Amino acid sequence: MISLGLLGAGRIGQTHATALLGREDARLAAVHDPDTKAAESVARRTGARVTGVEEILADATVDAVLICTPTDLHAAQAEQAAAAGKAIFCEKPIDLDLARARLCAERVRPAGVPFMLGFQRRFDPHFADLRARLRAGAIGDAELVQITSRDPVPPPLAYIQRSGGLFKDMMIHDLDMARFLLGQELQVVSATGAALTDPTIGAAGDIDTAVVTLRAAGGALVVISNSRRALYGYDQRVEVHGARGLLAVENVPTTAVLAAGAEGMTRQPHQPFFMQRYAEAYRAEIDAFLALIRGDDVAVPGLDDGLAALELAESCQSRARDLRAKTGQ
Amino acid sequence: MISLGLLGAGRIGQTHATALLGREDARLAAVHDPDTKAAESVARRTGARVTGVEEILADATVDAVLICTPTDLHAAQAEQAAAAGKAIFCEKPIDLDLARARLCAERVRPAGVPFMLGFQRRFDPHFADLRARLRAGAIGDAELVQITSRDPVPPPLAYIQRSGGLFKDMMIHDLDMARFLLGQELQVVSATGAALTDPTIGAAGDIDTAVVTLRAAGGALVVISNSRRALYGYDQRVEVHGARGLLAVENVPTTAVLAAGAEGMTRQPHQPFFMQRYAEAYRAEIDAFLALIRGDDVAVPGLDDGLAALELAESCQSRARDLRAKTGQ
Amino acid sequence: MISLGLLGAGRIGQTHATALLGREDARLAAVHDPDTKAAESVARRTGARVTGVEEILADATVDAVLICTPTDLHAAQAEQAAAAGKAIFCEKPIDLDLARARLCAERVRPAGVPFMLGFQRRFDPHFADLRARLRAGAIGDAELVQITSRDPVPPPLAYIQRSGGLFKDMMIHDLDMARFLLGQELQVVSATGAALTDPTIGAAGDIDTAVVTLRAAGGALVVISNSRRALYGYDQRVEVHGARGLLAVENVPTTAVLAAGAEGMTRQPHQPFFMQRYAEAYRAEIDAFLALIRGDDVAVPGLDDGLAALELAESCQSRARDLRAKTGQ
Amino acid sequence: MISLGLLGAGRIGQTHATALLGREDARLAAVHDPDTKAAESVARRTGARVTGVEEILADATVDAVLICTPTDLHAAQAEQAAAAGKAIFCEKPIDLDLARARLCAERVRPAGVPFMLGFQRRFDPHFADLRARLRAGAIGDAELVQITSRDPVPPPLAYIQRSGGLFKDMMIHDLDMARFLLGQELQVVSATGAALTDPTIGAAGDIDTAVVTLRAAGGALVVISNSRRALYGYDQRVEVHGARGLLAVENVPTTAVLAAGAEGMTRQPHQPFFMQRYAEAYRAEIDAFLALIRGDDVAVPGLDDGLAALELAESCQSRARDLRAKTGQ
Repeated sequence: MISLGLLGAGRIGQTHATALLGREDARLAAVHDPDTKAAESVARRTGARVTGVEEILADATVDAVLICTPTDLHAAQAEQAAAAGKAIFCEKPIDLDLARARLCAERVRPAGVPFMLGFQRRFDPHFADLRARLRAGAIGDAELVQITSRDPVPPPLAYIQRSGGLFKDMMIHDLDMARFLLGQELQVVSATGAALTDPTIGAAGDIDTAVVTLRAAGGALVVISNSRRALYGYDQRVEVHGARGLLAVENVPTTAVLAAGAEGMTRQPHQPFFMQRYAEAYRAEIDAFLALIRGDDVAVPGLDDGLAALELAESCQSRARDLRAKTGQ
Repeated sequence: MISLGLLGAGRIGQTHATALLGREDARLAAVHDPDTKAAESVARRTGARVTGVEEILADATVDAVLICTPTDLHAAQAEQAAAAGKAIFCEKPIDLDLARARLCAERVRPAGVPFMLGFQRRFDPHFADLRARLRAGAIGDAELVQITSRDPVPPPLAYIQRSGGLFKDMMIHDLDMARFLLGQELQVVSATGAALTDPTIGAAGDIDTAVVTLRAAGGALVVISNSRRALYGYDQRVEVHGARGLLAVENVPTTAVLAAGAEGMTRQPHQPFFMQRYAEAYRAEIDAFLALIRGDDVAVPGLDDGLAALELAESCQSRARDLRAKTGQ
Repeated sequence: MISLGLLGAGRIGQTHATALLGREDARLAAVHDPDTKAAESVARRTGARVTGVEEILADATVDAVLICTPTDLHAAQAEQAAAAGKAIFCEKPIDLDLARARLCAERVRPAGVPFMLGFQRRFDPHFADLRARLRAGAIGDAELVQITSRDPVPPPLAYIQRSGGLFKDMMIHDLDMARFLLGQELQVVSATGAALTDPTIGAAGDIDTAVVTLRAAGGALVVISNSRRALYGYDQRVEVHGARGLLAVENVPTTAVLAAGAEGMTRQPHQPFFMQRYAEAYRAEIDAFLALIRGDDVAVPGLDDGLAALELAESCQSRARDLRAKTGQ
Repeated sequence: MISLGLLGAGRIGQTHATALLGREDARLAAVHDPDTKAAESVARRTGARVTGVEEILADATVDAVLICTPTDLHAAQAEQAAAAGKAIFCEKPIDLDLARARLCAERVRPAGVPFMLGFQRRFDPHFADLRARLRAGAIGDAELVQITSRDPVPPPLAYIQRSGGLFKDMMIHDLDMARFLLGQELQVVSATGAALTDPTIGAAGDIDTAVVTLRAAGGALVVISNSRRALYGYDQRVEVHGARGLLAVENVPTTAVLAAGAEGMTRQPHQPFFMQRYAEAYRAEIDAFLALIRGDDVAVPGLDDGLAALELAESCQSRARDLRAKTGQ
C-alpha cells in the first residue's frame, strides 16, 4: 500500500485525489493547502488528514508527494521532497525560468527518488494509441507532423501576466507531444505569433496565436499552431504523416448526438477544456506514477523532458521576438 | 457507332441525351416529345433531329430507343420498339399495373431485343462498390440489411394521385436495391405506413412514411424505411450487416465544407434530390446500355427485375392495407 | 449522508460500489454476496462491511439497497426490501416472467418506498441529450424512429438458455429506449427473427437476429433491429426522424485515432461492450437514485416502465413465434 | 455563340473540350496539337477542326483560345493570342521564370483582351463555398489558415527536373488559395523543406516535403504544408480559423462506402488525384471563362494573381535555400 501526500488541493489536486479513491494498492494519507476549506473537502472525500507541508515530508509513512501547488513553488518543493526521500509527482512546469528549472534538476537528480512530471497528454489513451502504432511501424518513418491546439477562451489577463507567455504556458504541451511521439530531439526552424483575439493580450506583451515549425533529428518537419480561442471547444489534434500512411488523433465531441436540419448535419462541439478532454489521462498518469514507485517498467516524463520542452519553448519565444524586432511582424 | 432515338425530352430524357455527348461510339440521332420546345432544345444541344415516334421506330438506322415518356406510355412503346427490333432502354416502371407489366414482358421477350430497365441506383458507384465487396465475400453472408430512403419534400398532390402510391412509386427502388445487393428473391414479412408529413396525402389515400420487413431466400432480414420528407436533403443509405463485418453506403453531402461554431461542427446537407445524387448513376447506366447493345458481358436490370420489384411493392401495399383494415393502424 | 447496502458483488455491483466512492452525500455501508471473496474485495475498496441480506435489511441505518443479484432473486429481494422500508435500486428485469413481475409490482407499490429499475441507457449522456432536444421541440413531432443494437459476440449457450430469449434479454433495452424517447406507449406491428450467427442458438430455441416494427400512440413508426454479433464492436445507434429534422446518437469509438493508408481512412471500432459504452450511464444512474432518495425532482425508470418493456418483449416473442408457425420463417 | 480554339489536346485540353460539349452558348471550333492523333480524337468528339496555331489565331471567327500547351509555350502563345485580339484562357503558370512572366503580363495587358489563368481550385465548389461563407462574415476575421496539400505519388524524376521545384510547381496552388480565400496579400515568414520520400528527388536538387508560414496583410497567420506522397489519396484540405468559428474543406472520398470489421470503420481513400478531385472545378472554370468573355460580372484569376503566386513561390524557394545554406537543414 503506497501512501501519498498531496500538496495543493486546487482543481488538479482534487482530480489526483479522486484518482486514488477505492484503490487497494495506494491511498491518500495527507493533504495540505493554505486554503483550509479546500484541504478539508479533499480530506472528507478521501479519508486523508489535513496537515502541513513539513509534516508530510517528515512523515516516514508517506512514500510520495503530489506537487499541485502554484508554479513558483514547484522547484523548491520538489527539492525538499527529494531531500526527504519521497517519490515525486510534480505538475508542469518545473519552473518558468529555465535556469531555475535546471538548478532544480541538478538538486533533485542525486537523491535518486522516482520523479514524474505532469505532462498528462502522454497518458491520454488517444495519443498513446497513436504513438504505439507509430512505434510499431504502422506508417513507416514520420515525415510531417501537424499539431493543432486551441483553447476555448483566452485566460484572464492576470493569468496571462504570470503565465510565462503562450510558448511556455500553452505550446509547451505541444512541444512535449512532438518529442513524445517522435522520440527524437527537435530544433526550432521558425516561430511567429500575433495578438489577434484580444488586444489586451498584445498590450500585456503576449500573443494569442502562434505558428512554429521544427525539424526533428530524423528529418521530419513539425508544425504546431496555437490559438487561445476557439468557439467550437478545446481543439486538440495531432497528425503524423509517414511513408506508408497517416495517423491522427481527431477531436473528442461532448456527445455523440447528431442533429440534422435544413442547415446540415451538426455534431457536437469538442470537449470544453482540458479537465474534460484529459480526464482519462489524469487517471492514467496516476496509475503510471504508482507503477513508477513500485519499480515497474513504465515510461514517464521526467526532469529531462521538462527541461527539453522548456528549452524549446524559450527558443520559440526568442525567435518570435527577433522576428518581430526585425520585421515588425 | 450506335444510333439512338429518344422518346420524351423531359428532365430524365435530357439527362440521357447529355450522357451521349462527345462519344465516339454512340450518338443521339432523333428525339421526340409532344412538347416541341423541349425536343428542339435537346436537338440543338446534341445535333439530333426532331421527329415522331413512328419515324424513329421506322428508321432502320436507329439501333435503340430510350423510353423516357410518362409511365402510362412505357408498356406500349416498349412493345412497339420491340416489334421494330430496337434495343430498348425503358425508364421504370414498366407499368403501374402488374398485369399490364406482365403482358408487356410477354410481348417484348419474344422479340429478343436487348432490354434494360432504368433502375439507375444499380449503377450508382457507391452502391455498385458495396455490392462488389459483398459479392467478393468481404463480410461473409449478409444477415441484416437496412435501407433508409427519404425524399426531401413530398411531391405535389397531383403527382401523388397518379403515382401508384408510395410502395410502387418510391419504395420500389429500395425493393430493387435489396434484390440487387443480395442477389436473392425476397418475401414480405410485414408492411406498414402512415400519413404523417401532410394530411392531404392521407386524404388522397396514400401514405408518406413506411416501414417494411422482408426475408431473403438465404435467411437475411431486410428492413426498408421510407419518408417523403427530410429537411436535411435526400437521405439514401444502405447497410448490410454480415458474419464478418458491415458494409454501408453513407449519404453524399452537397459540399465538403465543415462550419464550426458554438453550436457544433456542421457538415452540409445531403444532395438535394435524385437528379444530383444519382448524376453519375445516370451516366453509368447509359454506358451499360451501350455495352448491352454491343453484346458485352454486362449485367443490367431487365424485365424480370421490373416485375419482381413491382410484385414486392404490390405485396407491401396489400399487407399495409390489410393491417390498416384489421387494426386501424 | 445516505447509507446503502449492496446485494450482489459481481461486475455490475462493483460498478455501482465504485460510483459511490468519495461522495460526501452517500456511502456504501454493507455488502453481501455468496461469493465471499467478491464481497470482501468490494469491502476493502469501499470500507463497507461484509454481511448477510437479512442483516442489511434489518439494519435501520441502511437507507437503501442496490439489488445486483441474479435475475431470479430480483423480485423476492425487492419485495423484502420494500417490506423493510428501504429505497430500492433493482437491476433489470424485475423478473423474466411477466406474471411474477406484476406480482412484485403489486407487492412493492404499497410500501411507497423509492424504487428505481436499472435501465441504465436512460442515463447515458448521449441518449439523454437526444431526448432533451426532442422534448424541447428541436425536430417537431417524431415520425420514424430507428434503433440499431448489436452485441459484439453472442453470449455462451448456457447464458442464452437462462436469458428468457433475445426479446426479453436484449431487445427489452431498445423497447424501453423507444418508450423513453417518445414518452408514449407502443404497439407491436410485427416481429420476426432468425438464428443466423450460430446454429446452436437456433437449436436452443432462441434467435440471434431480429427486426421489430412498432407504432407509437402518437403515430410514429419505430423499427428496432438486433443482432447478437458485430465484429466492429458494440453497435448502439438511435435515430429519430421528425417533421423538422433528425436527431441521432452515433456510435462511440474506442479511441479518436484515425489510421489512413492505401485501404482508406480507418477509425476505431465501437466501444467493446456495455460496461465500457455505458460507463458514464452507470455513474449517472447512481446519482439519480441518490437524488430520488433525497426527494429531488428526478425522473427514473420505475416498476411501470419495467412492466411495460416486459410486456412489449413478450408481445414480440409471441408475434415472432406465430409467424414462424404460420410461414416457417 | 462563342467560338473557341484549343491549343494543346493533352489531358487538360481534352477536359476543357469536354466541358464545351452540348452548350448552346459556345463551341469548340478548332484544335491544334503537334500530336495529330490527340488533336483528331478531340476533333471527332467535338466536331472541331484540326488546324495550326497560326490558323486559329488568324481566324476572325474564333473568339477565344484555351492555352493548354507545355508551360514553356504559355507566355509566347498568350502574347500572340493577345496580339490577335483573342480572349485568353491560359493554364498556370504564365512561366516558371518570374521575369518572363512579368514581361508576358506587360505585353498582354495593353491588348485589353479578357484573360484568365487556370487556377482551377478557385472554381472548386467546396473551396468556393468556404470562401463565400468567409466573405459573408460567418466566422468573423480570419486568424489562422491551415492548408494541407499532398500528392498521392511523386511525379517522375524527368517531370521534377522541369517543374521549377516544389514551391513553383505544387505549392503555388496553395499560395494562390491563401490569397483567394483571404483576399489579402501575403508575406513569407519562413519556408523549409526536405527530400524525404525519395532520395533521387533530393539528388535532383528538389524537395518533396515542405512547410511554409506566411502572414497576411490583415494579420492572419497562414501555414501551408506539402508532401509529394500520400498513400491514402490526394490530400487537399483547407481550414480557416476565425474570431467566431472555423470553416474547413475536408477531403472528398472516392466513394461513400463504409466497411466495418474487427480493425474498425474504414472509409474510402480520397480522390486519386487532381483530375478527379477537381473535375467539377474544371467545368466551372470554363463556365467562368465564357462568362468573362460575355462581359458578365465574374471574378477570375488574372495576370496579377499569376504573378503574385509566382513571387510568393520564388520567395519561399529562396528562403528555404538560405535556411539550408545557413543551418544545413
